[in-house]
Amino acid sequence: MSLRIIATGGTFDKHYDPLTGNLYFRDSVLPGALQRARIAQDCVFEDLLALDSLDMLDEHRQQVLQSCQSSIEDQIVVVHGTDTMRETAAVLGTAQLKKTIVLTGAMVPYLVDDSDAFFNLGFACGAARLAKPGVYIAMNGQLFDWDKVKKNRDAGRFEALR
Amino acid sequence: MSLRIIATGGTFDKHYDPLTGNLYFRDSVLPGALQRARIAQDCVFEDLLALDSLDMLDEHRQQVLQSCQSSIEDQIVVVHGTDTMRETAAVLGTAQLKKTIVLTGAMVPYLVDDSDAFFNLGFACGAARLAKPGVYIAMNGQLFDWDKVKKNRDAGRFEALR
Amino acid sequence: MSLRIIATGGTFDKHYDPLTGNLYFRDSVLPGALQRARIAQDCVFEDLLALDSLDMLDEHRQQVLQSCQSSIEDQIVVVHGTDTMRETAAVLGTAQLKKTIVLTGAMVPYLVDDSDAFFNLGFACGAARLAKPGVYIAMNGQLFDWDKVKKNRDAGRFEALR
Amino acid sequence: MSLRIIATGGTFDKHYDPLTGNLYFRDSVLPGALQRARIAQDCVFEDLLALDSLDMLDEHRQQVLQSCQSSIEDQIVVVHGTDTMRETAAVLGTAQLKKTIVLTGAMVPYLVDDSDAFFNLGFACGAARLAKPGVYIAMNGQLFDWDKVKKNRDAGRFEALR
Repeated sequence: MSLRIIATGGTFDKHYDPLTGNLYFRDSVLPGALQRARIAQDCVFEDLLALDSLDMLDEHRQQVLQSCQSSIEDQIVVVHGTDTMRETAAVLGTAQLKKTIVLTGAMVPYLVDDSDAFFNLGFACGAARLAKPGVYIAMNGQLFDWDKVKKNRDAGRFEALR
Repeated sequence: MSLRIIATGGTFDKHYDPLTGNLYFRDSVLPGALQRARIAQDCVFEDLLALDSLDMLDEHRQQVLQSCQSSIEDQIVVVHGTDTMRETAAVLGTAQLKKTIVLTGAMVPYLVDDSDAFFNLGFACGAARLAKPGVYIAMNGQLFDWDKVKKNRDAGRFEALR
Repeated sequence: MSLRIIATGGTFDKHYDPLTGNLYFRDSVLPGALQRARIAQDCVFEDLLALDSLDMLDEHRQQVLQSCQSSIEDQIVVVHGTDTMRETAAVLGTAQLKKTIVLTGAMVPYLVDDSDAFFNLGFACGAARLAKPGVYIAMNGQLFDWDKVKKNRDAGRFEALR
Repeated sequence: MSLRIIATGGTFDKHYDPLTGNLYFRDSVLPGALQRARIAQDCVFEDLLALDSLDMLDEHRQQVLQSCQSSIEDQIVVVHGTDTMRETAAVLGTAQLKKTIVLTGAMVPYLVDDSDAFFNLGFACGAARLAKPGVYIAMNGQLFDWDKVKKNRDAGRFEALR
């Protein structure tokens, strides 16, 4: 059974621009990451968006929802910026798709030293394979229900809502 | 709920020795990897063995079993060489411990370019959090029951037994 | 004969801040880089400044000059941002110190994938060991006299003035 | 003026083979390294040999000599294994070619964490640009005349003969 991996941008996928000194989006790092993880042959990669999650509008979240809806695969990982991951998860969660959808991202870009990105991708793939249908956020080694999590910006971690 | 991560060596944990030009074991890369993954605070790390899995004897597998038995944590990831991962999994599987134990490893060492190790660790942690009690092998983005998997040495992949 | 390596900041030494998503300065990467290059025992490292070179004021350039003046070592590498490397080189060059001073930097931070920083450091050290007294800029595999070079911002390269 | 960079193999250029767990030679890492160093456009790369330097025979050293002799470029970097770097340097040195030839290598492969390779390449390029005609060994941040150096195998360093 194949996994669908959907790129939407976020810190995970940022590159360094040597001409401006800024971080920006270019071709997604995910195809290379899936090769490196040795799972490319078992995945369908969808290069949907390349946005900082603070720049995500309702219409973008609808695009993510449509991709999940029309996906033949029932196990989906969405790579997303952490700042509004919860908002996109809420759009997907309220749609009740009967698929297992796991949003993940990174605190440090995949291409930067000491990045958590590749681990998070692995964790999210493991969760997408095993969790029952629903919408989840996978960050810092934990899986949260989409409506029971918040980002603690000071600590740079996701935490369960109590 | 904490995860227990047990190091036993394997390709995952090999270092390059500049004096001999050989790969060897030194202090495990896992504590650093858990920090980088931002899960160190939710894990108990156990530095049990540092062996090439071809050098693993019955007594070593018994040590792994004892560690799993005496673990307070019910979710356990064992980092292990791929060549005899199945044999160790069989020792753990037949013991029927009522814990979720996921063995993982790497085709390329954590410290070598293009390594799958960090992804595999993430996948295994995701699986350990979610799979029902049992013994599993997590490699190349798939979770296998311990008694339904074999390593395809020519392809460098684990595959389900049919 | 020891080399003096002076950190002043610049792209070379930028870190990624996971809490803000910005690049910033923290403890210099240079001590680690000198270890990795296996030259730490033959170098004196001076942690002078940690500035984006666009934020460098005259007083900072005077600090660099003073460090070079008071250095016991006659071979000096100054790691510096590329945007105003020429201005600092001019301050050092007009002082005519009878030492070999090589400024270098990076187009991509040391801690970011595909960085030129470690090569540039090596090139600058090689030049500092061999060039006759004077002030030079070492970038993209070339050594320029301080008063015969400009940065081509569109190409991200330093070029000789004709 | 262009540099010629000649690959002969050595630790610098070793890859990890996931199927056997051994280090081996494949396509050279040097073209990628020259791109990353932003000097590819100023270099001529020659993919001459891919050998562990312990496997180098007289005929191989003659091939290196011929490449240096027929090179249009007068500044040459030879990337070589460290174990017999001196022997090849002696063949080149006694030929008295009136070119600047710098041999370098690495204690840790370019593709392995914490490698000195990229620094050494930079240092060797800096030396090749500046040293007067002759044959040199550039390792651990020092430039040695070909006939005044030995490898200290216990320390993993090159040292001047006294």
